[in-house]
Amino acid sequence: MKVSARNRLKGTVKQLVPGSVNTEVIVEVAPGVEVVSVITKSSAESLALAVGSEVYTVVKSSDVMIAID
Amino acid sequence: MKVSARNRLKGTVKQLVPGSVNTEVIVEVAPGVEVVSVITKSSAESLALAVGSEVYTVVKSSDVMIAID
Amino acid sequence: MKVSARNRLKGTVKQLVPGSVNTEVIVEVAPGVEVVSVITKSSAESLALAVGSEVYTVVKSSDVMIAID
Amino acid sequence: MKVSARNRLKGTVKQLVPGSVNTEVIVEVAPGVEVVSVITKSSAESLALAVGSEVYTVVKSSDVMIAID
Amino acid sequence: MKVSARNRLKGTVKQLVPGSVNTEVIVEVAPGVEVVSVITKSSAESLALAVGSEVYTVVKSSDVMIAID
Amino acid sequence: MKVSARNRLKGTVKQLVPGSVNTEVIVEVAPGVEVVSVITKSSAESLALAVGSEVYTVVKSSDVMIAID
Repeated sequence: MKVSARNRLKGTVKQLVPGSVNTEVIVEVAPGVEVVSVITKSSAESLALAVGSEVYTVVKSSDVMIAID
Repeated sequence: MKVSARNRLKGTVKQLVPGSVNTEVIVEVAPGVEVVSVITKSSAESLALAVGSEVYTVVKSSDVMIAID
Repeated sequence: MKVSARNRLKGTVKQLVPGSVNTEVIVEVAPGVEVVSVITKSSAESLALAVGSEVYTVVKSSDVMIAID
Repeated sequence: MKVSARNRLKGTVKQLVPGSVNTEVIVEVAPGVEVVSVITKSSAESLALAVGSEVYTVVKSSDVMIAID
Repeated sequence: MKVSARNRLKGTVKQLVPGSVNTEVIVEVAPGVEVVSVITKSSAESLALAVGSEVYTVVKSSDVMIAID
Repeated sequence: MKVSARNRLKGTVKQLVPGSVNTEVIVEVAPGVEVVSVITKSSAESLALAVGSEVYTVVKSSDVMIAID
């Protein structure tokens, strides 16, 4: 499946924090650079995510803000 | 100002595509790695964004999805 | 690619409204039932969307609200 | 109240998974077709949601992505 | 219709900026306090929004960030 | 840091509801007017949020809907 969301970064799952409804997924996308995702626990299970899994973080462009110092 | 949104990637504005309401901002966050943002034209102007500007892309964790091959 | 976003509805593109930055995509997911999507013009072009294209609408669960009469 | 969010699908609550902060709401919008929503537990209680409740799933167009096979 | 999105602020439309796909809606929610919304042009037309319209801005809790100085 | 998200309301934290992954933050932005935010527990801790903290609620314009009576 090819998705319209244009921002994809390849990485490795470093940590999984499961809650009752959601799971926090911490992905290392470059040495020392982490992206944090919150998805449903069911999705995390359906993707069989585990520490070490090779994944992509995916973000829709309209959800990306810009900041300056 | 310190914002709760946990995903910040530093980069350089490569391209700006202004529309009537929104502006597309293409940011290079690593050599060959681009993140695309859509913000309001007013915000882009208020931040005085231009090609070459040093910026951060900022994303709330609940807007990050996970994908696998 | 398998994405964590759990809500996928199969449908057919009925109409495309291109703007400068975004394109509105109207998808018929059942007879008389339409889902409206706004994605970047670049994404619409990258997916080669046209009236009649078979597509899926995809929504992250945290973006779904519930309403009652 | 009439809301700008254009995507509304009528359905029946099939399952509720309450957490500490959020509640997952699984809605059947057509036979065998489910839409999953995550809302705050307080909202779920305020709407008095229960299995069997008649509801609408509501999604803003900018939160709908498009995918192709 | 009663929606799960918990953040509603009453206000008056101060300005409408229509684009090809989206319309920017500037709402004054208190004297000197404005909230900016971007919705589809079709939604703005469907709600018959005009300068002076009495409206509510509506935001899902998962889309609200927190910042500190 | 200056962020593109244009909607900022100053307020005081009234209540914090921590879960396993997310924390609900209830902010009073005017007497009797509350805005509810859901952020990750880690973000709430990183900002050292407590009842009484002076904060801003921050919302991207594309996440603001409009409703009428």
